[in-house]
Amino acid sequence: MRKIGKQEIEDIAVGAALLGTGGGGDPYIGKLMALQAIEENGPVTLLDIDEVPEDALVVPSSMMGAPTVMLEKVPSGEEAMEVFGKLEEFLGEDIYATFPIEAGGVNSMLPFALAARRGLPVIDADGMGRAFPELQMVTFYLDGIQATPAVIGDEKGNTALLSTIDNVWTERIARASAIQMGGSVMNAMYSMRGKNLKDSGIAGILKLEEEIGKTIRLAKANNVNAIQEVLKTVGGFELFRGKVTDIDRKTETGFARGTASFEGIGDYKEETLQLRFQNEHLLAQTDRRLLCVTPDLIAVLDAETGLPITTEGIRYGSRCVVIGIPCHEKWRTEKGIATVGPKYFGYDVEYTPVEELVRKGETE
Amino acid sequence: MRKIGKQEIEDIAVGAALLGTGGGGDPYIGKLMALQAIEENGPVTLLDIDEVPEDALVVPSSMMGAPTVMLEKVPSGEEAMEVFGKLEEFLGEDIYATFPIEAGGVNSMLPFALAARRGLPVIDADGMGRAFPELQMVTFYLDGIQATPAVIGDEKGNTALLSTIDNVWTERIARASAIQMGGSVMNAMYSMRGKNLKDSGIAGILKLEEEIGKTIRLAKANNVNAIQEVLKTVGGFELFRGKVTDIDRKTETGFARGTASFEGIGDYKEETLQLRFQNEHLLAQTDRRLLCVTPDLIAVLDAETGLPITTEGIRYGSRCVVIGIPCHEKWRTEKGIATVGPKYFGYDVEYTPVEELVRKGETE
Repeated sequence: MRKIGKQEIEDIAVGAALLGTGGGGDPYIGKLMALQAIEENGPVTLLDIDEVPEDALVVPSSMMGAPTVMLEKVPSGEEAMEVFGKLEEFLGEDIYATFPIEAGGVNSMLPFALAARRGLPVIDADGMGRAFPELQMVTFYLDGIQATPAVIGDEKGNTALLSTIDNVWTERIARASAIQMGGSVMNAMYSMRGKNLKDSGIAGILKLEEEIGKTIRLAKANNVNAIQEVLKTVGGFELFRGKVTDIDRKTETGFARGTASFEGIGDYKEETLQLRFQNEHLLAQTDRRLLCVTPDLIAVLDAETGLPITTEGIRYGSRCVVIGIPCHEKWRTEKGIATVGPKYFGYDVEYTPVEELVRKGETE
Repeated sequence: MRKIGKQEIEDIAVGAALLGTGGGGDPYIGKLMALQAIEENGPVTLLDIDEVPEDALVVPSSMMGAPTVMLEKVPSGEEAMEVFGKLEEFLGEDIYATFPIEAGGVNSMLPFALAARRGLPVIDADGMGRAFPELQMVTFYLDGIQATPAVIGDEKGNTALLSTIDNVWTERIARASAIQMGGSVMNAMYSMRGKNLKDSGIAGILKLEEEIGKTIRLAKANNVNAIQEVLKTVGGFELFRGKVTDIDRKTETGFARGTASFEGIGDYKEETLQLRFQNEHLLAQTDRRLLCVTPDLIAVLDAETGLPITTEGIRYGSRCVVIGIPCHEKWRTEKGIATVGPKYFGYDVEYTPVEELVRKGETE
């Protein structure tokens, strides 16, 4: 158990944006929400998963919707209070603690904003170990944990309490409602017991995020290469260095989809990288070969500072380093690949672990 | 108070299809649901609105969605039981009686199916005096009665309990969910007290429907002109006689929209009628003039039998009589016209009462 104050929030926000692989919303907005809430209510208690009673009622806090919409529709935090209140009312039980559903800008910060306002602790675990665009794409789903009863709500005061036959149906109905509600909504879903989170969640995600953020922050001060340090921290691989030459992005059916093209620089001269995303970066390939594919993580970092760049932050001319990170082993199972692998997203490639792709690239 | 058995259901179904002005779903499917429920559970008690205690909790039963979808997805009645059960649970109070939300095939019959299964009475009142395509298009809305808390549910077992800031938001979110849920859903919404229904509903709608059905049924036996008799019963006007020459119908955003064209016969030779619909028939015009427009009722009857034809039942070559019926005075108010008048549906004409349009036509 320890306290999370402003410096920790700053570092976690950076690490979450990196593990968020481009998605999860604007890290800056999420950070402001969390900092504001801590300013008003004091630091938040962070619990290790082992410190949570097995029968405690725990609920992740998250938003769903297109990040490009969130940029124009800054959440006040009131919606999160409202949906949590409605879910508690329905369950007839107090919520013991909250935690992030995923790593990613807004969704990593929202639990802190909510926890500060409601006086709850945050648990150091999530349901992805990265970010993904759909509600059923959580490790909880792989273990059969129901998303419903689920409450979604908008900033105007509209809410819906969903009860669905499975989590894919939760996704469909919540997504359609979110689009009607203005493109993004606050969620209170995947309520579970402490034991469920311990068994099915990914522990230590916030600690890792904080380490990443700290590494990048200190690299500058210590005059070391931020990207090399980050790769050590996360156990990742440099995939490409290049300059953004084209970015094709559109918001459809509630998602920010598109492709970014990078022209190689340095060792990668003469090569072109295509980066495909759907809220998150999902597939990186050159003309010659596949570099990394979902569920492994693809992060785009500023070549200078090492800071992560979200899909909506990719700009023409930016010089970037694209890195790959092995995903959590829970995603490398058969059901994991079926749920979040390349085929699910419509890419006609077989999943191959990033470390194998890197090894293959080196021996070619 | 009286009992509604099979013959009454048959007559009400015909009358409801006529007042449903082409919408409200397939009258045959609705009738089968009601007949089956009465067969299994016995006749249903029908109450006049004056027989309902002022503080009784009353809830209309209805479906929403495109009738063209309902044809392929016959409701079992179980969904209606489920959504009513969920609403009762949420309100913490037993529902005293149900009633139709509108006149129209499925939605006129559903209250009887539900009432028979749950042992509830049906009240002789509705919220439109006709049929309309959107949830906020009820006389209750004109008087500020909230649609929420609202439960919607599909035949698979998915449900959503909505709480919205106004009834237009209920419509938007429920519609989007209905499309995801397979195109149509069962509703439990607009819960109110007996006094609200008395003040804001349209009383005697089922009695009128039964009279229309009986008139058409007996016309054949008595060898009188069914259409002339119906016009007397409803206080309506013959607008056109013709043969269907073209029918352009598509299901989009959960609605069956389109236009039917009729070539005049008899007195109407050389004239062409355009009939525009969006689930319901909304506007009838010839090349020369406007004949009838929403919220006044436009019904298409089989020229031979006088039986009403739904929008999805309009077939190339059918010989039809198109009639117009003045709507309830509640719809002729400023808020009524704003809610369901031609401008709302995107037709650039001013609302003029059908009786005035007919008078103008006669003096031309």
